[in-house]
Amino acid sequence: MHQPKRFKKISGIEIPIHEYAEEIRSGSRLHLSKAITLIESMNRDRQEVGQELLQLLLPVTGRSIRIGITGVPGAGKSTFIETFGMMLCEKGHRVAVLAVDPSSSISGGSILGDKTRMQDLSRHPNAFIRPSPSAGTLGGVHRKTRETMLLCEAAGYDVILIETVGVGQSETIVRGMVDYFLLLVLTGAGDELQSMKKGIMELTDAIVVNKADGDNEKLAKKTVREYKQILHFLQPATPKWTTSAFAVSSLKNIGLDHVWKDISEFQNQMKESGYFDERRKLQTKDWFRAMITDRLIDEFFSQKRKNAYDLESQLVQGELTVSQAVDKLFKS
Amino acid sequence: MHQPKRFKKISGIEIPIHEYAEEIRSGSRLHLSKAITLIESMNRDRQEVGQELLQLLLPVTGRSIRIGITGVPGAGKSTFIETFGMMLCEKGHRVAVLAVDPSSSISGGSILGDKTRMQDLSRHPNAFIRPSPSAGTLGGVHRKTRETMLLCEAAGYDVILIETVGVGQSETIVRGMVDYFLLLVLTGAGDELQSMKKGIMELTDAIVVNKADGDNEKLAKKTVREYKQILHFLQPATPKWTTSAFAVSSLKNIGLDHVWKDISEFQNQMKESGYFDERRKLQTKDWFRAMITDRLIDEFFSQKRKNAYDLESQLVQGELTVSQAVDKLFKS
Repeated sequence: MHQPKRFKKISGIEIPIHEYAEEIRSGSRLHLSKAITLIESMNRDRQEVGQELLQLLLPVTGRSIRIGITGVPGAGKSTFIETFGMMLCEKGHRVAVLAVDPSSSISGGSILGDKTRMQDLSRHPNAFIRPSPSAGTLGGVHRKTRETMLLCEAAGYDVILIETVGVGQSETIVRGMVDYFLLLVLTGAGDELQSMKKGIMELTDAIVVNKADGDNEKLAKKTVREYKQILHFLQPATPKWTTSAFAVSSLKNIGLDHVWKDISEFQNQMKESGYFDERRKLQTKDWFRAMITDRLIDEFFSQKRKNAYDLESQLVQGELTVSQAVDKLFKS
Repeated sequence: MHQPKRFKKISGIEIPIHEYAEEIRSGSRLHLSKAITLIESMNRDRQEVGQELLQLLLPVTGRSIRIGITGVPGAGKSTFIETFGMMLCEKGHRVAVLAVDPSSSISGGSILGDKTRMQDLSRHPNAFIRPSPSAGTLGGVHRKTRETMLLCEAAGYDVILIETVGVGQSETIVRGMVDYFLLLVLTGAGDELQSMKKGIMELTDAIVVNKADGDNEKLAKKTVREYKQILHFLQPATPKWTTSAFAVSSLKNIGLDHVWKDISEFQNQMKESGYFDERRKLQTKDWFRAMITDRLIDEFFSQKRKNAYDLESQLVQGELTVSQAVDKLFKS
């Protein structure tokens, strides 16, 4: 194996890199945070150190359950994660909360940026919350979140929660990096599903109807029945797993233990069948392939964007065939 | 505009290319068939002639309704197309039947290869049936079918039916080349949907329950109700269009007129709103983009397949990070 560099004089790392890795393994939050900053860095040299660090830690990654959480804005994702995360921390788990926020690459802002959204959890010694990387392409955000997840696992976090808002391809991307995918919804299945992305239900391992409290409780239970009815007809996201629906109240901490029980059963079943590891291997391969494709397209269009744009308008005018346009573009 | 070649001595084309195009426009089946053979050819020169011919004809393409038809094997696609096509031919329409069959690239066989499947239709003067291209990558089959469709339009076919079996990405690809997408199913929604591809219902503009005759009729109507119930919750494939479900019997020619009425209404509404043309333009742009991506990936992996494979196994072993593997591959 390639010999890691002994010593780095890059800001924040002034100790031998294997000692630095050891600090992360032993649970130092400071070192974990700084390592994530290296992974997220735009600077080539820092990125490389980040990669070496991650490479050293790879053997101790993977020992977690990776849970994706999605839902329309207003479904109560932060409150759910706050309550669910606190419950798990109290059970002795170590919980890392990450996010993939495609809007951050446009706005420069980021979800989870404001830790005040999860006041109790962010102060709990067993929890680690990291906001979404605030810049870069979706592919870049994807890479950073995936690698941050691995660093958190190396640091001993055994539950990883990855939050995403349902914009663009973000759900598919998060589905591609987690074991279990959870869709958080509000009452009234029909209206909400109509506004959700196509095929979203077939990505999910559980549907959680939130805000099942007070006047809303009855309606929430009706919504659970409706979702179960639809789920009955659809293909499950995970082979041989029956996607179910639950009513919970994140605010009043009702029903969240059922969700955790479902996740634990899922994990047991999938590990027993071997699909747990198999899916992770497939995910790594898919990720490799996706990064290659992204880079090929980026490099190609960075030189040919103008030509492609011109050819595209000729196409729409019906002046040449698509095959001819592609040939011209590659020859240009 | 680029001046088309005057004369080609390539087998099958011995007249000036613009005269050849004129023959197609005037409805010569022989010239149409030979033009399709040029489009499907593996020979670079013939392909180019095919493209020039298509380019000449582009101004007279597009004047059709493009209908995609999918369904599991056994759903009765050939019988449906036979009866539906005959009905349209009798109404005075000119109907072209094409196919995208991803399995043909593996087996070398092709659906629609056997015209005996559609005995009456294949003999009708208003119908033109062309089997699926029997070799090549799915991207290649896709290109050929799309370009064949344009040639058929230039030859005056005003209804294009594109059949596909539900394997791999074929439905998404066919959805990307048609205006209206129809899913043919059997009775018993639950079992069948479970075996269908994820998200398929959200690609379809109509669900047609086939074999609604004899003892099966009651069950077919129940199935229609079940599908309508599910559809109520899902996003429509075409914005502002309500996907509906119909019971038909292709064998006894019952209910097929309802399907045609639905298609006609669809066409009127979409043309009025402008979405008909807008979607076609988007489809052309997507196709352009997809062909570029396919070619980039093909060219890249034709040189680096071995390296990519080696790096992939190192990845799965956890010996290096995905970012490192991608860097190595691009530097190799």
